[in-house]
Amino acid sequence: MREIIRLDTHEREQLIDITAQVQAIVARSGVRDGLLALYCQHTSAALMIQENWDSSVPTDVVTLLRKLVPRGAGWLHDQQDDNADAHLKAGLIGPSETIPLVDGKLALGRWQNVFFCEFDGPRPGRSIVCTVIADR
Amino acid sequence: MREIIRLDTHEREQLIDITAQVQAIVARSGVRDGLLALYCQHTSAALMIQENWDSSVPTDVVTLLRKLVPRGAGWLHDQQDDNADAHLKAGLIGPSETIPLVDGKLALGRWQNVFFCEFDGPRPGRSIVCTVIADR
Amino acid sequence: MREIIRLDTHEREQLIDITAQVQAIVARSGVRDGLLALYCQHTSAALMIQENWDSSVPTDVVTLLRKLVPRGAGWLHDQQDDNADAHLKAGLIGPSETIPLVDGKLALGRWQNVFFCEFDGPRPGRSIVCTVIADR
Repeated sequence: MREIIRLDTHEREQLIDITAQVQAIVARSGVRDGLLALYCQHTSAALMIQENWDSSVPTDVVTLLRKLVPRGAGWLHDQQDDNADAHLKAGLIGPSETIPLVDGKLALGRWQNVFFCEFDGPRPGRSIVCTVIADR
Repeated sequence: MREIIRLDTHEREQLIDITAQVQAIVARSGVRDGLLALYCQHTSAALMIQENWDSSVPTDVVTLLRKLVPRGAGWLHDQQDDNADAHLKAGLIGPSETIPLVDGKLALGRWQNVFFCEFDGPRPGRSIVCTVIADR
Repeated sequence: MREIIRLDTHEREQLIDITAQVQAIVARSGVRDGLLALYCQHTSAALMIQENWDSSVPTDVVTLLRKLVPRGAGWLHDQQDDNADAHLKAGLIGPSETIPLVDGKLALGRWQNVFFCEFDGPRPGRSIVCTVIADR
């Protein structure tokens, strides 16, 4: 069973909590036990499991990645398209996460949320493929 | 088939080799071919596949992450809870790894081991969900 | 269904596009819907989903990782084997990626390609295990 989450983003770099949408897909699937595979279909965005108690950790993630991968720091790809930093951040964080399903729910830890990480927004129609695999 | 590994950690930052526990779960599952999905249920810990010839590489991993993500470097989350660096390290490394099963064993390369990465210990009862999916 | 991709690498650090080989394995499997799990069996190499419009982004990835993880920067593991940086880069990027299959094809985004990342080449016989799981 598969569904696609579509998202519009509103800033160049931001983390958007998609846990509720993902949980709703799991509920619609009817699968009790198995795996949920999340996949971001972009090379300038990624997925991260992270704490969402308040906006501090998501903001710190953006700050850290700006420090590790400075924009416009002489990257070759900036000569084609001024977003090398976005591709590099996306490659570091990665597009896929696989989460177990237990009793029909995502087996997230108490503080874990699923975030879409935009690194080259704002952009309409970002897509995340959600595949539910039952353990039969 | 699913089992949970529970671990107590003893240092703030350390890598703990859990390969033998994971392999025992695979053996108990009776599954010969398929996938093992590992999932760490914490936002201040992660999973890494890495060499364990001796303690040098695991120690270098801790050193590298301290350099890339310095503790107390003005992170917003440190105002709530003094562990922003732990969340950021966990987000960089990630909580999930999926390993193929071949003839009833993890298809790890010769030098590969599975490590739980603690970034905010010592803590009791860290949990890693291990899901075995057969390829039928 | 499972197949192994074997690769010879020719530089110390390079990204090699393996999308066509992976797509061919998916086609041979006959699976229309499900997941493809990719797994790199090495601790000095990794897998990354990234843009391949031209060589600029793959080259920038190598440049970034050299900056984040400098070779010979006093790593403990260099006393055993002069490749600590390769292990650290491999651990940061990670060995596994899971990609959905839709209508018998990898559901990659328009710009996404699958890269094998060599960090300690040249080496013969690098291996990537490709496992196809049908969603039945």
